[in-house]
Amino acid sequence: MSNTLIEARRELALANRIVANEGVIDAFGHVSMRHPDNPNSYLLSRSRAPELVTSEDFIEYDINSQPLRDPGVGQYSERVIHGEIYKARPEVNSVCHHHCPAFMPLLATGTDYMPIFHLGAVGGIRPPFWDQRDEFGDTNMLVVKPEEGASLARALGKHWMVLMMRHGVTVAGTSVRDCVFRSVYSARNAEYQVRAMNIGSDIATLSPGETNLAGQISAKTTGLTRSWEYWSMRVANKDHSAADGSAKPASSKAKPARSKTKPKRAVRKRRR
Amino acid sequence: MSNTLIEARRELALANRIVANEGVIDAFGHVSMRHPDNPNSYLLSRSRAPELVTSEDFIEYDINSQPLRDPGVGQYSERVIHGEIYKARPEVNSVCHHHCPAFMPLLATGTDYMPIFHLGAVGGIRPPFWDQRDEFGDTNMLVVKPEEGASLARALGKHWMVLMMRHGVTVAGTSVRDCVFRSVYSARNAEYQVRAMNIGSDIATLSPGETNLAGQISAKTTGLTRSWEYWSMRVANKDHSAADGSAKPASSKAKPARSKTKPKRAVRKRRR
Amino acid sequence: MSNTLIEARRELALANRIVANEGVIDAFGHVSMRHPDNPNSYLLSRSRAPELVTSEDFIEYDINSQPLRDPGVGQYSERVIHGEIYKARPEVNSVCHHHCPAFMPLLATGTDYMPIFHLGAVGGIRPPFWDQRDEFGDTNMLVVKPEEGASLARALGKHWMVLMMRHGVTVAGTSVRDCVFRSVYSARNAEYQVRAMNIGSDIATLSPGETNLAGQISAKTTGLTRSWEYWSMRVANKDHSAADGSAKPASSKAKPARSKTKPKRAVRKRRR
Amino acid sequence: MSNTLIEARRELALANRIVANEGVIDAFGHVSMRHPDNPNSYLLSRSRAPELVTSEDFIEYDINSQPLRDPGVGQYSERVIHGEIYKARPEVNSVCHHHCPAFMPLLATGTDYMPIFHLGAVGGIRPPFWDQRDEFGDTNMLVVKPEEGASLARALGKHWMVLMMRHGVTVAGTSVRDCVFRSVYSARNAEYQVRAMNIGSDIATLSPGETNLAGQISAKTTGLTRSWEYWSMRVANKDHSAADGSAKPASSKAKPARSKTKPKRAVRKRRR
Repeated sequence: MSNTLIEARRELALANRIVANEGVIDAFGHVSMRHPDNPNSYLLSRSRAPELVTSEDFIEYDINSQPLRDPGVGQYSERVIHGEIYKARPEVNSVCHHHCPAFMPLLATGTDYMPIFHLGAVGGIRPPFWDQRDEFGDTNMLVVKPEEGASLARALGKHWMVLMMRHGVTVAGTSVRDCVFRSVYSARNAEYQVRAMNIGSDIATLSPGETNLAGQISAKTTGLTRSWEYWSMRVANKDHSAADGSAKPASSKAKPARSKTKPKRAVRKRRR
Repeated sequence: MSNTLIEARRELALANRIVANEGVIDAFGHVSMRHPDNPNSYLLSRSRAPELVTSEDFIEYDINSQPLRDPGVGQYSERVIHGEIYKARPEVNSVCHHHCPAFMPLLATGTDYMPIFHLGAVGGIRPPFWDQRDEFGDTNMLVVKPEEGASLARALGKHWMVLMMRHGVTVAGTSVRDCVFRSVYSARNAEYQVRAMNIGSDIATLSPGETNLAGQISAKTTGLTRSWEYWSMRVANKDHSAADGSAKPASSKAKPARSKTKPKRAVRKRRR
Repeated sequence: MSNTLIEARRELALANRIVANEGVIDAFGHVSMRHPDNPNSYLLSRSRAPELVTSEDFIEYDINSQPLRDPGVGQYSERVIHGEIYKARPEVNSVCHHHCPAFMPLLATGTDYMPIFHLGAVGGIRPPFWDQRDEFGDTNMLVVKPEEGASLARALGKHWMVLMMRHGVTVAGTSVRDCVFRSVYSARNAEYQVRAMNIGSDIATLSPGETNLAGQISAKTTGLTRSWEYWSMRVANKDHSAADGSAKPASSKAKPARSKTKPKRAVRKRRR
Repeated sequence: MSNTLIEARRELALANRIVANEGVIDAFGHVSMRHPDNPNSYLLSRSRAPELVTSEDFIEYDINSQPLRDPGVGQYSERVIHGEIYKARPEVNSVCHHHCPAFMPLLATGTDYMPIFHLGAVGGIRPPFWDQRDEFGDTNMLVVKPEEGASLARALGKHWMVLMMRHGVTVAGTSVRDCVFRSVYSARNAEYQVRAMNIGSDIATLSPGETNLAGQISAKTTGLTRSWEYWSMRVANKDHSAADGSAKPASSKAKPARSKTKPKRAVRKRRR
């Protein structure tokens, strides 16, 4: 195994534990990365809660989400979410799928995600919704068939986040750290947005210009480095004490203001 | 004591600690199992907080909730909840009674439980309400008489969850792990449903078809195994550090949509 | 020092730490007990956060809230809350004053406390409000003068809890454990009531008959013993790991339903 | 290095960790202090999460927010927030900038902060709002240019807190402990205010007279000492167990009641 790969596996294991520790993921959900040496394959843990994942747990999948060799262990059923996005988006190198509590109010009401503070800009402008029922009718809601994964990837389009009605969220990133940063801060923003909506329907969202400018923060190493050090410390402290860690989180779908001067407006619901 | 029984007691003790650690239960509430060797009896802890229960704490009760021998320790007063459900439902092998905070808003307003994401389907379609006052007038709200337990079991009917107005929830399962899984994820769903209702009255609940299909997830070992490993690890970590664990949770009553194509609808309150 | 007194001090120190650990109290607030050997005096900690209080920290006060001897350390400024209640209510043997977050929405809106589940009955039927401004005009909101404490005690009357507008709550009990039980579960109930009010104005409160019957639960040793063992374990685990403990809690003012058959009704605000 | 400076650095490091541990700050945000020996300079950590800051991490900046010597490490980009406030307000000796979740609903809706209990008075009467967009148009929302910092300092005026629309909060204090006390309790108050607004629009805020009187509490050493001891213990316990600490908090903008006799009124939104 190349040193690059060893390091990549360590980073990905830590990413799994960070998103769990920060409350984005519980027993379900997963974080993957494109293989550092082979862009037509990706690494994803065997079937287990992300908080338990170690660098030994990763299985290598081809771009069609088939394991390169018999893993001999249980596999996540929803891995096509990852494979189909890697297929459609060459610049994406990491994917996180989760059911973060903070997003649930948006997913259960079809409410657009709105960046309400600078860090929430990582969710992008008006991230799209996807409803498995539209194309596939009644299912058990799991995204397991290649065509289901491909449909989700089409809905994602050029965005960094897609909201899955009555299910969860899928986040993409240019790197593992970018993906984790987007996952955590879009979840924080969704949490705050929902709490803001509880006291008023006029939400002062970032303007499209502000969203674009603030969204570039996560591309800079300063913010990524500072937050990664912080989240890693929190994981390490927890491991050390082997203590339980409570979690929170959130994110949704930003609708750009019609006019640059009126980014504050009533919350709109998804037309259906 | 048979090896089966020893193992069963260990599993049940862990189940008690898991539901406590995941915030479904605090000082009150309890989890029982049908006796593995004798379907006409069941195991329930002596009177103590579930988080403290060990495999030494279980008392064997007959189907009428009488101890097979003098236990010499304090007993839960509400054990007829368990006995009467085992009597009425041969396929039920585990029962959990709790007062999870997440359900309280539903129980205090008579609001139907709605599965709003796939894992919430374990609460089933339109779980029934039961109000002790209807049949028994003013009481101290505890279910202690055999006829009170039998009334509750009738209300449960063929469902897996019954909502007790101004009191709590009782959950049934085909096994201890199934019962724990239903208890935790119905509570998570109730939490999310309430938060969703805070920002809109149009809740996009699972359709009956989706609920049926997604509800079968918990019957498969994959999800049960993954979550059980996760929750067990959280209990073990806490024991190791002997640190306090904060808790959350919840669940309620799903009303099936009139039409398969319109599962999104305004929240209805219980007619009374 | 008598063995009774030594034991009483230990119990009171633990009570302070329990209410802190259960989120009823943070850096401010306090729990006292009537002196076991002298009903005209009471024990209250020197000025420090309740979570830090040990059995060495208690100062003995006479019924006028003057220390029996120069304590040589900082004292709580609001001790007349305790002294004036002991003076007015011979059957009260413990008092807890707190600013629990769960109650704040009720205290900031003048909303009546309603028992919405059996354990919430410990808050009693329609606990009264008290507003320092009514009698004393603009103050710094602290209850420091004997006449302020006496006014509060009059408002408490024969109840077990008084809600202090824009300030906090004071709870009385027949024993330290009774006072702690009432403090914790009234806080839990307030938390649930507020969350229920977020999704509907029709709250299904306990009827007066149910409240009276369920309110007697805390007088029985079973519930007190089970919860005390649980809360003590949580304090002990935390001490052992020396880990931080997050906290929550709450409680308020129950208005008895006009008619026994209609205890469900819209929430009423305090007339002012 | 003088003993005063050594002690000041220790105090400031602890302040950083306290505001993080109490949930006011996560990976971002910072606390500074005016240099104890040189009023024209101030101390601020190098770029890292406040929870990780030690007394070795501080960089000395001149009043124009330039480092006195090449620090050789990453620096916070928003340090002009601190420098410009020290320049404008000689009596301010400590500044905290944060994005506390509790404030987000106010910052996203332009809702005034209201002190709803005595400790919330530390946020002062009607703390002002500042919107970077008003003067600088679309930005990435970070306050990095001297003129941006100066604009913010003008908005702060003679208040102790300024609310930054779609961004966060900046708090000033006469000392590090005063600043921490104001930061924590204004955040607690914002949390409670938002929860109160969820159940009613009539909020019983402190009157201007009560706010002035209660606001002086933090100037007294009793409350500062008691809370500092408590918060320090919580940091120390966490360090000892190296366990993760969950966090909460909040604050906003108090509008003085028109009339002393009617401090209770409907919440007003910022005119825009």
